Amino acid sequence: MKAFVHEGAPGLAGTKYTDMPDVAAGPGQVRIRLKTAGLNRRDLRVISLGKESDPAIIIGSDGAGVIEQVGLGVEGFKEGDEVIIFPTLHWLENTPAPPENYEILGSPTHGTFAEAIVISAGQVELKPSYLSWEEAGVLPLSAVTAYRALFTRGQVQPGQRVLITGAGGGVGTYLIQFAKAAGATVCATSRSAQKREQLVKLGANIVVPTEEDWLEVLEGEKVDLVIDSVGAATFHKCLNALKPGGTLVTFGATAGDEIKIDIRSFFYGQLNLLGSTMGSREEFRGMLQFITKHEIRPVIDRYYPLSEAGQALSRLKETQNMGNIGLHIG
Amino acid sequence: MKAFVHEGAPGLAGTKYTDMPDVAAGPGQVRIRLKTAGLNRRDLRVISLGKESDPAIIIGSDGAGVIEQVGLGVEGFKEGDEVIIFPTLHWLENTPAPPENYEILGSPTHGTFAEAIVISAGQVELKPSYLSWEEAGVLPLSAVTAYRALFTRGQVQPGQRVLITGAGGGVGTYLIQFAKAAGATVCATSRSAQKREQLVKLGANIVVPTEEDWLEVLEGEKVDLVIDSVGAATFHKCLNALKPGGTLVTFGATAGDEIKIDIRSFFYGQLNLLGSTMGSREEFRGMLQFITKHEIRPVIDRYYPLSEAGQALSRLKETQNMGNIGLHIG
Repeated sequence: MKAFVHEGAPGLAGTKYTDMPDVAAGPGQVRIRLKTAGLNRRDLRVISLGKESDPAIIIGSDGAGVIEQVGLGVEGFKEGDEVIIFPTLHWLENTPAPPENYEILGSPTHGTFAEAIVISAGQVELKPSYLSWEEAGVLPLSAVTAYRALFTRGQVQPGQRVLITGAGGGVGTYLIQFAKAAGATVCATSRSAQKREQLVKLGANIVVPTEEDWLEVLEGEKVDLVIDSVGAATFHKCLNALKPGGTLVTFGATAGDEIKIDIRSFFYGQLNLLGSTMGSREEFRGMLQFITKHEIRPVIDRYYPLSEAGQALSRLKETQNMGNIGLHIG
Repeated sequence: MKAFVHEGAPGLAGTKYTDMPDVAAGPGQVRIRLKTAGLNRRDLRVISLGKESDPAIIIGSDGAGVIEQVGLGVEGFKEGDEVIIFPTLHWLENTPAPPENYEILGSPTHGTFAEAIVISAGQVELKPSYLSWEEAGVLPLSAVTAYRALFTRGQVQPGQRVLITGAGGGVGTYLIQFAKAAGATVCATSRSAQKREQLVKLGANIVVPTEEDWLEVLEGEKVDLVIDSVGAATFHKCLNALKPGGTLVTFGATAGDEIKIDIRSFFYGQLNLLGSTMGSREEFRGMLQFITKHEIRPVIDRYYPLSEAGQALSRLKETQNMGNIGLHIG
C-alpha cells in the first residue's frame, strides 16, 4: 500500500511517499481503508525528532475511513462501518494524567498517512453521519484537545468571558465554536487580519490583534478563562487579562517554551494555571456527542492528495493555515 | 491605650510603642480586650510599604482576647466571651477570589498590636477552649492560609504524598500537621538542620534539605501535591517533584517573585499551578473545626511583650523562627 513515511534525516527532508507492507487485523483489531487523514503540529515534531537510525514510520494521528477487516473477538463493528480514529492510545477513562503506556498514534506506532491502518477496535468510533469524510478526517486530535482544555480543565460555564489565543490554528477553531455553543462570550486573538475576519464568522464576539494592548481592545473587562497555545511571546498578556480567581489553560507553545510569571501577583490574584494535552476516550466520546448536538463542523483550510503530504506539512509549519489541513487518500 | 504603630519612615525605623485613643464599639461591632497577638510576614510588608505621609496605623492581623463591650444589634456574643479574630475582612463565603472590598486587618484598618480593638462582630469567633491564649493569638492568618491552600485549593486526599517547602515557617507548621491529620504522607523541606529535626517531631515523614537533590532524598518517588511558599529559588525543584497530573499550590515567595516555567513540560505533564492567599470566613470556621477535632496546636517560636514588638518583627524578618511569634498584651 502507499504511505507517507519518515525515514532518514530529521525534518521534512527525511520524508517520502512510498510503498509499505499491508498488514492483516489481529485479534481485537480492525483494518480500516482510510478515506481521509488530518495534519497536526505533532507531525512536525515527530519528523523533526526522527533519527537517521529509526526504521521507516508512517506518520499521522488523525484519520477516517471504512472498516474492511474485523479481527477475532471484536464486537460492535462490522465490515463496511464508517469510522473515525481516536488517536490517543490506551487513555480510556478520564483521569488527571494519561496512563504510563499512553502514546499517540503516528510514532512509534504506524499512523494514518497511508491507504490502510490496523488498529485496536477500542481506538475506533463510528463517524457522526452529518460529517463529510473531509471533516471527519481532520477532527480527532484537535477536537479532543479543545474539548479537554475547555470543558474538563477549563470548566467553562455559560455567561463566562473566554479568551482564546492563536485562535486561527487547528485547535483554536474548535475552541471558538465549542465555547460559543457552551454559552460563553468568546474573545479571540490572532496576528492575521484575514484570520480575525474569519474568526468573527466562526462566532468570536471580540477579536484582538495579538500585538495590541489586549485589555484596551477588551475595554478593560477582564476574562474568566484563557485557553492559550502561544506560550512565551504573549504569556504575560494572558495572565494580565484574567479576573481574580481566573483560570489559564495551556496546551501549546507555538511561540516559545520558557515563560515567566510574577508569582506574587499570581497567588494574590488566586489564579489557576492548568496544563492540558490531548484527551481520553471518554472525552473523545463526549466531544463527538457535543459536536453532533450542536452540529459543529471542523474548519478546513485545504486538502492535499496523500502523495503531497510534504507540501501540506510545509503549509502547517509556516502557520499559514486557518483551521485544519487534510489529506485525500481513498 | 498602648499600641504598637507604624508612623513615618518605611520599615522598622518607622515603628513605635505609643498611646492611641480608645474607641467604643459601634452598631454591629464588639470591643475586645486583647490578651495576645500574633506576627505574620504581612506585618513586615505593611511597614516596608508605609509612607512618611501616612497617619499612625496600629499594625497586626492576629489576636485573641475577651469581649468587653457589645455594640447595638450584635447577636451571639456577650461581655466576657473569649474570642479569636478572623482578620480577612469582608470575605465571608468561600469563593474563587475575595470580594472587591476585601482587606486584611492591620492596614489600612487598625490591627491587633494594641490593648484593645473594635471590630465587626462578623469577624469574631469563639476561641476553641483547648487552646491557650498564646496558641489562640498566633493562630488566625497562618492557619486559615494553610487550610485554604491545602484543602480548598490543593484538595489533599488520604494516602497522597504532599511536599511542603520552607516548612519551618508560620504557615508550614500548620501545613504539616493538617496534611498529617488528613492522612497524607508528608515530605517537608527546610534549609536548617535544627528545624528539620523539629519538623520530624511535628509529623513530617520525610525531611528534605533544601539545597540537596529532592528526588534523590525522596528516592525517586514523586509527589501528588506541593504547597510552596519559597518561590523563585526552588520553583523548578517543586515542579520537578510532581507526578503527572500533580498540583502545586503557591501562597508565598520568601525567596524571589519571578519564576520560570518550561510550559511545554508543564502541559505535557498535565500539571496544575494554583495561587492561594488567606481564606474566607467559611474556611476559617472549617479550620477551627478541623483543629479542634484533631487537637492541633500552633507551634510557638517565642513570645515578646507588646512593647518589644519591634524585636519580634526583627526575628521574623531574619526567618530565624520555627513556627509562630506572638505578643503578650493583657
